[in-house]
Amino acid sequence: MSADADQTDFQARLTAVADAVEVTLDRLLAPDTLPNEVTRPPRLLEAMRYSTLGGGKRLRPFLLVETARLFGVEGVGPLRAGAALEMIHCYSLVHDDLPAMDDDDLRRGRPTAHKAFDEATAILSGDALLTYAFDVTAGEQTHPDPGVRAALVLALARASGLGGMAGGQALDLEAERRTEPHTAAFVLQMQSMKTGALLLYAVEAGAILGGASPSQREALMHYGMALGAAFQVADDILDAESDTETLGKAAGKDAGRNKATLVAALGLDAAKARRDLLAREAAEALTATGLGARTAILAEAARFTVDRKS
Amino acid sequence: MSADADQTDFQARLTAVADAVEVTLDRLLAPDTLPNEVTRPPRLLEAMRYSTLGGGKRLRPFLLVETARLFGVEGVGPLRAGAALEMIHCYSLVHDDLPAMDDDDLRRGRPTAHKAFDEATAILSGDALLTYAFDVTAGEQTHPDPGVRAALVLALARASGLGGMAGGQALDLEAERRTEPHTAAFVLQMQSMKTGALLLYAVEAGAILGGASPSQREALMHYGMALGAAFQVADDILDAESDTETLGKAAGKDAGRNKATLVAALGLDAAKARRDLLAREAAEALTATGLGARTAILAEAARFTVDRKS
Repeated sequence: MSADADQTDFQARLTAVADAVEVTLDRLLAPDTLPNEVTRPPRLLEAMRYSTLGGGKRLRPFLLVETARLFGVEGVGPLRAGAALEMIHCYSLVHDDLPAMDDDDLRRGRPTAHKAFDEATAILSGDALLTYAFDVTAGEQTHPDPGVRAALVLALARASGLGGMAGGQALDLEAERRTEPHTAAFVLQMQSMKTGALLLYAVEAGAILGGASPSQREALMHYGMALGAAFQVADDILDAESDTETLGKAAGKDAGRNKATLVAALGLDAAKARRDLLAREAAEALTATGLGARTAILAEAARFTVDRKS
Repeated sequence: MSADADQTDFQARLTAVADAVEVTLDRLLAPDTLPNEVTRPPRLLEAMRYSTLGGGKRLRPFLLVETARLFGVEGVGPLRAGAALEMIHCYSLVHDDLPAMDDDDLRRGRPTAHKAFDEATAILSGDALLTYAFDVTAGEQTHPDPGVRAALVLALARASGLGGMAGGQALDLEAERRTEPHTAAFVLQMQSMKTGALLLYAVEAGAILGGASPSQREALMHYGMALGAAFQVADDILDAESDTETLGKAAGKDAGRNKATLVAALGLDAAKARRDLLAREAAEALTATGLGARTAILAEAARFTVDRKS
């Protein structure tokens, strides 16, 4: 198969998973209450839907779903775990955009949640999305084995919490308040938490759902770590080179803010070299899974991660 | 045993559990990282500790620990589940106090988190506490059976989320923006979500950990619902009658804000009658557990809930 055909297959698969995740999120965020819920307040639910539906590449759920599929595990389980992961990602964007944080008005080309609703509703909708992600992950439909569900909850919480994504955002904000330049070591640590941890969880969750062997899981985690790092340096490069219209969010803000980025720490050329190296490292890590050609879709995902334009 | 002796036993037990919960929280919020955590950012961790340690009656963990103890389940498991529950309670206070929400400067007689730190750190520390609560609940040390841990996660998420606590806070804030008086039916629904759901979870979690039979669980849930309702109407009465110094937070704010309270909806006398009725209902529900005198401590807890001065 030619590289072009691979690319077409990948895009079709990415779209198919994004559509299935959208349907899953739409159903999970319906007005109907679940057992033990009193009522779902309409405005809060609307804000939760606003920030999760109709947007995004769904890269994280895609990685989760495709990793589980390597082991023949498909359908509602991985889609629910992927939708929960996307809720965590979306909640983090809502809170990061708040006036007290990055103070952004634009996200995916639309007003941010606190602009479209109000600040209190934005905070609460983020809290509720974060909480609901654990509800969905722990639910029986996600996997029949409660041991698998408990393992997913534990991994998701650790990736999202003070030693992962939330901690990474705290470090990022502290960095912005400093005036001296940031070391590459600091930027790498911060990014491995802020964006890397959740991308790694996507692959880890797929491995947990799929019942990967320890060596397969190790290889997949290696892939996930390289991919996560590649993703973030690609993001830094995009911010430095792109414009607001293409990006769908404010571009070029990093330089003006003493933001901790690899472009600032290493320079643009070194950042690009690192990005390409990491994408190759991610693809190569897949061979150690022993799963052969089936992993081609994840290798494509690594290429997509560094080639994307927004 | 006289009522006075009961009271002394209850206070001693309440203090003992509060001390054990404090130690558990202190250990969980240590600087040491857990597997898969990159690092725990010191300032974020400090803010998490500030909002959870050294304060509060620990009523929710107490109810959880004592309910589990009815079935002979004691030690690290219930303490971890109780500490996780307390993290959820504390995160909700941190976010509720934010300028965009209730805009409070004082909590438990100390500056609120966004005053002691800053708004971004307060938001993130709340997010991280909420997330960590699920980490702790899902962890192996909480219970050897992953089915029990998954059930706890599911119940905790549902009690805290859009159909529970977070949804209740959203309704409460919306109510404040209206100018017409609130119906008792609305106030009851909002309160059953905002404060009731988490108190009910405390009892539910104890029943799950203890392996209560379906009928015992039903009786305990009845107790938990009555106790939760009694707690909140007692809170409304305290706000109407107490002063800021005794309460450790701003008092008398409800009336000035068109806050949805039962005192406003029913009048002070009817609210007090309801409070006392609910406390009795809670105590009586315990007889249906068939556990006899062992439940006396929970009956005391119901009495304490309505008799407290802050």
